[in-house]
Amino acid sequence: MPETHAETRTETDSLGTIEIEAARYWGPQTERARRLFRIGTERFPRILIRAVGLQKQAAAEANKALGELPAEIADPIIAAAAEIAAGERDADFPLPVWQTGSGTQTNMNANEVISNRANEMLGQPLGTRKPVHPNDHVNRGQSSNDSFPTMMHIAATEAVEQRLIPALGVLRAALEKRAAEWGDIVKVGRTHLMDAVPVTLGQEFAAWAAQVAHGQDRLRGALPRLRLLPQGGTAVGTGLNRHPDFDTAFCERVRALTGLDFQPNPNKFEGMGAEDSFVELSGVLNTLAVSLTKIGNDIRLLGSGPRSGFSELVVPADGLSSSIMPGKTNPTQSEALTMVAAQVMGNHTAITVAGAQGHLELNVFKPVIINATLQSVTLLADAAESFAHNMVEKLEPNRPRIAENLAKSLMLVTVLNPRIGYDKAVQIGKKALAENLTLRDAAERLGYVKPEDFDAWVKPEEMVSPGATLAGAG
Amino acid sequence: MPETHAETRTETDSLGTIEIEAARYWGPQTERARRLFRIGTERFPRILIRAVGLQKQAAAEANKALGELPAEIADPIIAAAAEIAAGERDADFPLPVWQTGSGTQTNMNANEVISNRANEMLGQPLGTRKPVHPNDHVNRGQSSNDSFPTMMHIAATEAVEQRLIPALGVLRAALEKRAAEWGDIVKVGRTHLMDAVPVTLGQEFAAWAAQVAHGQDRLRGALPRLRLLPQGGTAVGTGLNRHPDFDTAFCERVRALTGLDFQPNPNKFEGMGAEDSFVELSGVLNTLAVSLTKIGNDIRLLGSGPRSGFSELVVPADGLSSSIMPGKTNPTQSEALTMVAAQVMGNHTAITVAGAQGHLELNVFKPVIINATLQSVTLLADAAESFAHNMVEKLEPNRPRIAENLAKSLMLVTVLNPRIGYDKAVQIGKKALAENLTLRDAAERLGYVKPEDFDAWVKPEEMVSPGATLAGAG
Amino acid sequence: MPETHAETRTETDSLGTIEIEAARYWGPQTERARRLFRIGTERFPRILIRAVGLQKQAAAEANKALGELPAEIADPIIAAAAEIAAGERDADFPLPVWQTGSGTQTNMNANEVISNRANEMLGQPLGTRKPVHPNDHVNRGQSSNDSFPTMMHIAATEAVEQRLIPALGVLRAALEKRAAEWGDIVKVGRTHLMDAVPVTLGQEFAAWAAQVAHGQDRLRGALPRLRLLPQGGTAVGTGLNRHPDFDTAFCERVRALTGLDFQPNPNKFEGMGAEDSFVELSGVLNTLAVSLTKIGNDIRLLGSGPRSGFSELVVPADGLSSSIMPGKTNPTQSEALTMVAAQVMGNHTAITVAGAQGHLELNVFKPVIINATLQSVTLLADAAESFAHNMVEKLEPNRPRIAENLAKSLMLVTVLNPRIGYDKAVQIGKKALAENLTLRDAAERLGYVKPEDFDAWVKPEEMVSPGATLAGAG
Amino acid sequence: MPETHAETRTETDSLGTIEIEAARYWGPQTERARRLFRIGTERFPRILIRAVGLQKQAAAEANKALGELPAEIADPIIAAAAEIAAGERDADFPLPVWQTGSGTQTNMNANEVISNRANEMLGQPLGTRKPVHPNDHVNRGQSSNDSFPTMMHIAATEAVEQRLIPALGVLRAALEKRAAEWGDIVKVGRTHLMDAVPVTLGQEFAAWAAQVAHGQDRLRGALPRLRLLPQGGTAVGTGLNRHPDFDTAFCERVRALTGLDFQPNPNKFEGMGAEDSFVELSGVLNTLAVSLTKIGNDIRLLGSGPRSGFSELVVPADGLSSSIMPGKTNPTQSEALTMVAAQVMGNHTAITVAGAQGHLELNVFKPVIINATLQSVTLLADAAESFAHNMVEKLEPNRPRIAENLAKSLMLVTVLNPRIGYDKAVQIGKKALAENLTLRDAAERLGYVKPEDFDAWVKPEEMVSPGATLAGAG
Repeated sequence: MPETHAETRTETDSLGTIEIEAARYWGPQTERARRLFRIGTERFPRILIRAVGLQKQAAAEANKALGELPAEIADPIIAAAAEIAAGERDADFPLPVWQTGSGTQTNMNANEVISNRANEMLGQPLGTRKPVHPNDHVNRGQSSNDSFPTMMHIAATEAVEQRLIPALGVLRAALEKRAAEWGDIVKVGRTHLMDAVPVTLGQEFAAWAAQVAHGQDRLRGALPRLRLLPQGGTAVGTGLNRHPDFDTAFCERVRALTGLDFQPNPNKFEGMGAEDSFVELSGVLNTLAVSLTKIGNDIRLLGSGPRSGFSELVVPADGLSSSIMPGKTNPTQSEALTMVAAQVMGNHTAITVAGAQGHLELNVFKPVIINATLQSVTLLADAAESFAHNMVEKLEPNRPRIAENLAKSLMLVTVLNPRIGYDKAVQIGKKALAENLTLRDAAERLGYVKPEDFDAWVKPEEMVSPGATLAGAG
Repeated sequence: MPETHAETRTETDSLGTIEIEAARYWGPQTERARRLFRIGTERFPRILIRAVGLQKQAAAEANKALGELPAEIADPIIAAAAEIAAGERDADFPLPVWQTGSGTQTNMNANEVISNRANEMLGQPLGTRKPVHPNDHVNRGQSSNDSFPTMMHIAATEAVEQRLIPALGVLRAALEKRAAEWGDIVKVGRTHLMDAVPVTLGQEFAAWAAQVAHGQDRLRGALPRLRLLPQGGTAVGTGLNRHPDFDTAFCERVRALTGLDFQPNPNKFEGMGAEDSFVELSGVLNTLAVSLTKIGNDIRLLGSGPRSGFSELVVPADGLSSSIMPGKTNPTQSEALTMVAAQVMGNHTAITVAGAQGHLELNVFKPVIINATLQSVTLLADAAESFAHNMVEKLEPNRPRIAENLAKSLMLVTVLNPRIGYDKAVQIGKKALAENLTLRDAAERLGYVKPEDFDAWVKPEEMVSPGATLAGAG
Repeated sequence: MPETHAETRTETDSLGTIEIEAARYWGPQTERARRLFRIGTERFPRILIRAVGLQKQAAAEANKALGELPAEIADPIIAAAAEIAAGERDADFPLPVWQTGSGTQTNMNANEVISNRANEMLGQPLGTRKPVHPNDHVNRGQSSNDSFPTMMHIAATEAVEQRLIPALGVLRAALEKRAAEWGDIVKVGRTHLMDAVPVTLGQEFAAWAAQVAHGQDRLRGALPRLRLLPQGGTAVGTGLNRHPDFDTAFCERVRALTGLDFQPNPNKFEGMGAEDSFVELSGVLNTLAVSLTKIGNDIRLLGSGPRSGFSELVVPADGLSSSIMPGKTNPTQSEALTMVAAQVMGNHTAITVAGAQGHLELNVFKPVIINATLQSVTLLADAAESFAHNMVEKLEPNRPRIAENLAKSLMLVTVLNPRIGYDKAVQIGKKALAENLTLRDAAERLGYVKPEDFDAWVKPEEMVSPGATLAGAG
Repeated sequence: MPETHAETRTETDSLGTIEIEAARYWGPQTERARRLFRIGTERFPRILIRAVGLQKQAAAEANKALGELPAEIADPIIAAAAEIAAGERDADFPLPVWQTGSGTQTNMNANEVISNRANEMLGQPLGTRKPVHPNDHVNRGQSSNDSFPTMMHIAATEAVEQRLIPALGVLRAALEKRAAEWGDIVKVGRTHLMDAVPVTLGQEFAAWAAQVAHGQDRLRGALPRLRLLPQGGTAVGTGLNRHPDFDTAFCERVRALTGLDFQPNPNKFEGMGAEDSFVELSGVLNTLAVSLTKIGNDIRLLGSGPRSGFSELVVPADGLSSSIMPGKTNPTQSEALTMVAAQVMGNHTAITVAGAQGHLELNVFKPVIINATLQSVTLLADAAESFAHNMVEKLEPNRPRIAENLAKSLMLVTVLNPRIGYDKAVQIGKKALAENLTLRDAAERLGYVKPEDFDAWVKPEEMVSPGATLAGAG
């Protein structure tokens, strides 16, 4: 900013001259934006800057192939863009998220960095704007209005396909492993948070794994629309000033660069005027946040104690303790996970509000949408893996407590419904609770079930699936 | 309530006796719930009560087929449940949405109404509880915990497949018709709400139609999980006390009754402990709300005026006017539509919060989830149709204004980029604006474009697609 | 609607003629709106219709006092409006919430009902429009744009001051009573859901009571802006066509009619163009929903069991049971309360989205804002009272379980920190847990604390306040 | 992380030994947390780390004054804490936001940094843990559970009082300046986005200023609860292990250090178990976001064009342009402002969800709550100032367009209501629109108003306030 005393070069644009730190690749549009948007500290993450590079590289490759750019212009553009994709120019993207709502400044930032770097490769000093011009060549056949959302789609798709879905796979595998290991541990089930009929510990883990698996499917379900790129719409969706085949050639190049199945959006207007596919994706991320909240909560609930809680799971002693209560072990990973989920739900509201406010040919909330999306994707992926490794894989069942809880459960009485009817079963349960009896004693005292029948019928281990019990019932 | 002085009958349950209005089919559990939940005025809509009847009918049919209920018990249950599905017992479902979070009271309400009505068919007075017992027979092989979410899935699926997707089809068709009719009207496009390069009015309508079409696809994408029924999980997901084939037999019956492709949820625990599929659906409804907000907003924006706004569309004079400003016509349908969208976004937060709070084997926010879901689905469907018929079908383009706006647009200069370069084009545009010139004059005065070239190059009607213009450019 | 075959009368307005059911007081604007907005089933609640009547009554009284309406016109208007306020004309307000965003149709509905009823009082048939004219007289000096938000403010203020704050008082009193009664019950505290140092049961209830008390204060903090009425702004905020003193005269009349301290909004534009004071109020309702969620959750957590949960509170047996698990008692009131809270949080999003979308001189999301606000207020009030009476007042502490839990708590070791240091205390706690010892034994075996010192220092009943323990510590 | 090859020192805690980079001031708890929470890139902002230092400094000062810490221990703690407050130890706070939900790791991080730094001052090497012990001395009389929320309150209060309220003052002043300057520019008002009766440009700016002023008041209204510090509750709210006067002594010190009016929370349990005061504050920030969205939207709407929009304001040419459309000027500051608002609304959902999930004695979503709160406060403050300086102060009215729009407005007919009645005024307006006449001509042709009367009555400049017009009306 102005207070810097580094050496500068002077550049000129339509508004006049402006000083830019001499070593910077960016140009006057970026410099102006730096000064006009002094808002917050948020910067786009690496994965978006990578997509910026990929978009510019693919565009130049397509324009070259279509004869829109000569090789001597296209090749240095391609090389410079590849450097951005590779992470070598991150320091030259200084702009905040809170800029123009089309992401124009970030697109121009890329155009300027690439033209300067390309010209540098061609032996020109920074700021020359030729032979490679930021608008006429780097931005050839493009507008910020189609390029920036294309970068958004590329970044989000990569993040979902290559980071989040696999990370959920890690969590899912960890849960499924527990489900298999602990399939024989019969325990008290709970509905309304109250003691209910038995389940196995494995069934509980399998349910959580099913939630995660559905989450993966939901993400996959959003991909077809996420992979539709608006590139080729140029300024308003019509494709003015681009080659008729540019959109298909561009997608072909992006597929080659990423290995992911990107396709041209058949209606570019939809892909630029609205950002519905991000609202949709965010709805899926929100659903994931809901699933992970339940999983994190359930595990901390089963791990509550160690002596005065549910205490059926033993939360790993991770060495992090209370600053005042010596030796206390807390479900710290559940807390990190559910905090992440809360932020994801919040980002979803932000994305919804932003998505709803487009006007006509352009939604101008693109930067906040992609920033919140990538934050949510990254946090969910990191937290899912952390939870898998630091919580699920280190949990232990508290078998004595589980057995003790099961033995005293009153809801085992439910299995008597088909034999003696619901109304008599109610009386047995109430008597046992009121007089602190076992169900067996209460049933006998009421004269409803003989002890030997009780023993034959009330077998918790046979109550965790439909078939066994009913076979013998009237 | 107590203050009623209607004749009553006395019934007895495990808590003691209770007076019930004599003519009512409901029983003591419903009556107790009426007294305990005096919260709000919200009642479940018809479509849910229909699903309540369908679920009870299908369950009795399945139990009969599997030999779990004899025909003399099953048949009157089936007949009584069918009456509920048909809407003949709505007055006997008096309970508020704000009850137990499992929907237990509504399930018991159904059990009681059906047993009383079935016994009545068999010649017994109300309140007899035999030969048909509400728990032992009507609720046979079921729990509220699997039955109520099954009702939820049936109701929501019917509402989405039979009401919302078709209603969106009406709106989409209306938009597509306009897109086709007005494909030749070239007009100013707008980005950042500022004048931009041309589009056709048809392109604008086609983009909105594409949003609606994507909305239909998104709904279809959520159906596979919405059609998975948790029926058969009974109390906690294990299926205790039900026939091993009950879930498949049940789904077969529901398919027959509804014509929709319901399937057993392979993991009943997931379908009862979580309500993720509703959070997912709500995410899609939220995306639709975002799309419809944009459509409603864009149309009111283009219709703003009549003299001092954009005024490119003429909003229908629907006869509703200002109470003070004589003759004022307002975009009333846009307002109803976007208000509906706001409520749907709100309901989505409610459903998200509710979905995130399940504990272990049971999510206990089911009533608020289904009530908000069905409200959102109904409002979106009604509003989409109302908007199609009362707004889209009655809009007219304001051709003179459209032509006038287009003629004076400065952004037509964009087409010169490939010929003279971006930097010179900037100068032309700025000069025209500053000196209130036409672009043609400004271009000539700057010596950048000859008038005859300008006329050959700057043809708005050729700027609404990629090919035409570039063909002739360098 | 058209399908009705009731006798009709024909009325004429600027759009032409229209048939209206003969016995209805409403007129052509209402009838047109009925036909144009067939969206949903939601109607404004009684408390808003009451405010509609109050607004019209106060306006006529003010116009009469200021000489803007002669007594022979004003008096029947006043009488007819008072009937609306009193609830005698509810059936003549048939319009849905989902109408024009200014509430114009409901304002015109009132104007038409009042003019018809006033003319009827003066011996004229319905539909005459004279001598009392709906716009010229009933709406005198008013616009929907200032009148409808005024109705909103009146309704919301009454609902908050007369319904919600007192209902919270009921809940607060119930909690405070428990806090006082159970102040001597020392029990395990819990942080991170894990066993922690002791608290009293009374302290827990006092904390919840403090949350509710803060909620009341927060509501009171929003009232100053809620009591500012935009009446007098007429069409756009300028006050065109109204008497210079109309706003002050109007507020004086509303104060007299309601007993509440309404004042003219000094900036009418702010009060019509934005609905920020409702977004603010909704933020407070949202905070209340958060507080009540915690209270409902904490109580269901402490009441979990009866045998395998925390089981420190005994949830009232309300007679509502599981449809399958005999004799099961559930925290049904917690479930209703937290479901209400979820809907309130959702309505808050709806109100936020609606509030953010105003344009220039008029926010056109008023109907959804007031409908959601009044639903939230009513649900919170009803649920708070229901929870107070059916849950808080009927809870019982489970003293044996509380004592048992406390006795075995490992976190009592905390009190040793000031005597032996945190690091040694950690070792004691860990040893006790690992070897299933009492803290006393572990402390002795490690040689850190003599048994007699342990007994002197570790007194749970002295650990529930700051002073006692530290006094004796080094 | 492990991959670092820097020189390390070995420390020991209750879990065993751990390697820490030798030059770091943090200790084993921080190091373990670094390894366990590899989630996201978010770190607490400076303003929170400052509050961390202030809290530790004030605690040591209070303990010293109360005789709980000897001067030789207290003084180096105070000095080390002051360094943190001053920003000299930021690099030693490496932990992510996504950690334990009590903020325990950040509190322990502070305890460790301070004890190491204090011991260093006393000539000891890092890792010694004596004479100054992180728990026994730095954390004396404290717990993370009361200390971290105290840090939250301090940081948020400073941010609101010293940053946000003044920044809003800048925006408000800029708006009020425009309101005063442009109070004489009469223009078309708009309701429902349609042409309505006149307002002045100054009135529009004054309304926006009023929104901002209310926002400042709302913030002030939340401060009384935000200034209540839970410090002194220690582990669960009881104050175990702290001096009876510690809370009051602590607040006295914080007041001295900050100049802000902090007070002890009279119910520590409320302040630790819940975070309602942050949900409340966030509700106010959300209201601000709503207000700023409207302001940003209204200004971009009035600035739309330059030729085919409303065009009543001229948006500043900031030099940032389209990458494809030469010379295009966009309302970039409105876009940044409304994007910020969307994120703030999203953060509000995150905070609401987080606030609702506390359990018993401890809400464990504290880090996400404070991080989102401080992000929202900072973004709102930065964006408000940026918008004031780069948009409001640089706007210009487009007087010719404003005059042209006003002259042709049909809604001026409204002023005739009191003279000729609403129904005749409707006819004049409709005729003028249909036949493209002036109102004056239409009124004359219909024979309702003589031209000289029309000229006397219809004076837009007299229509922007209540009095003038009505005085002469019947």
